[in-house]
Amino acid sequence: MTAGFTAALLQAQTQILNHMDRRLPQADLLHQTMDYALRGGKMLRGFLVLESARLHDVPETAAIEAALAIECIHAYSLVHDDLPAMDDDDLRRGQPTLHRKWDEATAVLAGDSLQTLAFELLARDSVGPNALSLIRTLAKAAGKDGMVSGQMMDIAAETAETPLTLDEITILQARKTGCLIEWSACAGARLAGADPAPLRHYAQALGLAFQIADDILDVEGDAATVGKAVRKDADAGKATFVSHLGLEGAKHRAQELADLACAALAPYGAAGDTLKDAARFVISRDS
Amino acid sequence: MTAGFTAALLQAQTQILNHMDRRLPQADLLHQTMDYALRGGKMLRGFLVLESARLHDVPETAAIEAALAIECIHAYSLVHDDLPAMDDDDLRRGQPTLHRKWDEATAVLAGDSLQTLAFELLARDSVGPNALSLIRTLAKAAGKDGMVSGQMMDIAAETAETPLTLDEITILQARKTGCLIEWSACAGARLAGADPAPLRHYAQALGLAFQIADDILDVEGDAATVGKAVRKDADAGKATFVSHLGLEGAKHRAQELADLACAALAPYGAAGDTLKDAARFVISRDS
Repeated sequence: MTAGFTAALLQAQTQILNHMDRRLPQADLLHQTMDYALRGGKMLRGFLVLESARLHDVPETAAIEAALAIECIHAYSLVHDDLPAMDDDDLRRGQPTLHRKWDEATAVLAGDSLQTLAFELLARDSVGPNALSLIRTLAKAAGKDGMVSGQMMDIAAETAETPLTLDEITILQARKTGCLIEWSACAGARLAGADPAPLRHYAQALGLAFQIADDILDVEGDAATVGKAVRKDADAGKATFVSHLGLEGAKHRAQELADLACAALAPYGAAGDTLKDAARFVISRDS
Repeated sequence: MTAGFTAALLQAQTQILNHMDRRLPQADLLHQTMDYALRGGKMLRGFLVLESARLHDVPETAAIEAALAIECIHAYSLVHDDLPAMDDDDLRRGQPTLHRKWDEATAVLAGDSLQTLAFELLARDSVGPNALSLIRTLAKAAGKDGMVSGQMMDIAAETAETPLTLDEITILQARKTGCLIEWSACAGARLAGADPAPLRHYAQALGLAFQIADDILDVEGDAATVGKAVRKDADAGKATFVSHLGLEGAKHRAQELADLACAALAPYGAAGDTLKDAARFVISRDS
């Protein structure tokens, strides 16, 4: 069912890693740590950029900068999120987290320079005439009103007296992970100067489905397969989509959202099939 | 001697703080922490942006975004630099460092979103037709080949077996603090689409003079006046401009560099007088 997606994702990973070798030579320790942080991920966000660019006939030379840029932002957020002062994780993508392999200071700086690199890539000539629109929307999606505000909400929730409601979790996740997924899916339309509305609707449903699937994986998954610690939320007594909806309810909701995501792609006809496959993959993945 | 500069600096501080209130409403805790990190600094970098913009008749509506942007980058670097895993400082600008006033996780996130905000500001329509040039050069100055690489060199030096040579310290400081000072001074020319070469030569001398003055302050300064801990370098047995040149030698070199900075402004005639005052201030400051 998701064979088209799996092949496209593999191709996207190869393209992005090849581009990383061009843009991030392993010149010194800092470059090496940034390279380490970028490797091993699914690169779903970069795939969404490349696929939405394909739908809009955007040259690959432009799209690949944006695809690597969003992977830089995602990687930076993981490196900082894993720090002892934050989630204190030892394992990420099946490897030691950056501060475990090196040290905390190096992890702070590697994350910092990954964020900078994202904007450096988007400001390159090869991105073309709509570069500023991509930079402006990425900064909004990643910053104080987007991803980082979601992380702040997440930290506040840990010490709050009452668990988050379902609505609060939905808002938190829309910011923490949804904003970047939305930016990725809309990037192709923005690069082409086209209306990103259908892709935005697709991504909003996809992002929420992705997070529900993440909560399900935390309950049902196996650490070795998932590549990071599991059962963390339940052990911490944290409110999640699963604690609110139950395991079956959460699966049902994820399926509904994947259907909604696919329906939003109707304007693209058969050209949208790979993105539809991506939505089905997101709710059936085991890592 | 530096009265023109003092007045211009005060005016720049007021302009930048007013603009901060517009662009960074204290909507929630994250916004408040970012506001806290931005306040209380000299805003020398923002002043350089505004002054170089004035020299090139750039509209203030454009220059003020760039001035606030560079102060965001500078503030983020200080917040992360002060973290326990980095310099572990309790005092900054005479106030508790951000992780002391709140906590480490909040300090990591406040720094992260300050960096993002810098690029968001530079991508605004009000910056005008040369926004991408500012974004591209700022990313280079702040990232893996600029400021952050200087911070990595600084960390490596702490555990190195032999102290840094004078040439190595010069390269380290050119990256760690020089790059951002250079970007600030060149910003006005870049906003105007003019040649930044004279301002670059000015800033390269100014940046080095600034760092030598910082090393002198660490030896001669008073913590209460300086607003941060002093005597840190000597206590740590760290190689500095003073340890290499001696106190008098360092003062002499700072004066030479200030003269060099002033000479580079010759093409601007009397219009460059405030920037010349800034160079004299930098080597005579007590904080």
